[in-house]
Amino acid sequence: MIATKTVKDYIRTIVDFPHEGIMFRDVTTLFADPRGFRMAIDQMLHPYAGQRIDKVVGLEARGFIIGGAIAHQLGTGFVPIRKKGKLPGTTISQEYTLEYGEAIVEIHDDAITPGETVLVIDDLLATGGTAEAGIKLLERLGATIVGCAFIIDLPELGGREKLTQMGMEVHALCEFEGL
Amino acid sequence: MIATKTVKDYIRTIVDFPHEGIMFRDVTTLFADPRGFRMAIDQMLHPYAGQRIDKVVGLEARGFIIGGAIAHQLGTGFVPIRKKGKLPGTTISQEYTLEYGEAIVEIHDDAITPGETVLVIDDLLATGGTAEAGIKLLERLGATIVGCAFIIDLPELGGREKLTQMGMEVHALCEFEGL
Repeated sequence: MIATKTVKDYIRTIVDFPHEGIMFRDVTTLFADPRGFRMAIDQMLHPYAGQRIDKVVGLEARGFIIGGAIAHQLGTGFVPIRKKGKLPGTTISQEYTLEYGEAIVEIHDDAITPGETVLVIDDLLATGGTAEAGIKLLERLGATIVGCAFIIDLPELGGREKLTQMGMEVHALCEFEGL
Repeated sequence: MIATKTVKDYIRTIVDFPHEGIMFRDVTTLFADPRGFRMAIDQMLHPYAGQRIDKVVGLEARGFIIGGAIAHQLGTGFVPIRKKGKLPGTTISQEYTLEYGEAIVEIHDDAITPGETVLVIDDLLATGGTAEAGIKLLERLGATIVGCAFIIDLPELGGREKLTQMGMEVHALCEFEGL
């Protein structure tokens, strides 16, 4: 019998990062493995086969690694959503709530032509706060969002429900229990 | 006669970002265009055709977008070099000098197996400080560096000479005059 390694098997858990009590799911071990990385990209794209996707949107920073690969695989352009102050052109911005305090994400105001279809990419769906802010930015620019694809979903944190309630189609390759 | 758009033609210049007197070369307009993005990836890989590359190393954050796509194209793994405090596992770190003050980059200490061949990717070669620090990290882990590939070189800032003096093979797709 051959045991096939899944995407989840390539992800390692770092205890107490970034602070005590957190089980950090580390995708760098997945990305570093040629088979793991390719499998992740292929599986993230699988639900969208045959759908029109004009642009892939990646959330800073790990969403850039996967998003760049996915845009390349699809032959589309790539658009970054970044933390405040990083994008050089004219931007629109959206505030969102973190565990402690608030954060702001931005997108170039000319990054999307109204009516373009986009796929939103990040590595991890936790509370969904960053993705929600990103979706709001994309909707303000007139994008049609085909879906939001993640490697990991932490279902206890409620991100999937939050995005589904916004009308999003959400896919993740695997789930982990706990924070 | 057909005028063919080059990689350089897709890059826009933002005046006075991040502060007065800087002509910021913005690659997001290149990435957002399907033809531009694919052309950049293809041309960055061209000098390395037929060479063994085990891993693609991307420098945070724009190097993640291109590096992810290049790793996917080559069928290799991807390894991030990140700013201090972002990587969850055990890291080694390297300080380097910025225009004002200093910065630190890190890599997971198990990201490279000694003897592995790597290609270093970033969008912009300016003074070469970040790339130099990244190369030192990779050498400390026993990597063999096949080359350093950038989209843009700003030759007046001396980065190419700095990296060449370290024994690196440096490629960039285009040059801009000025800072």
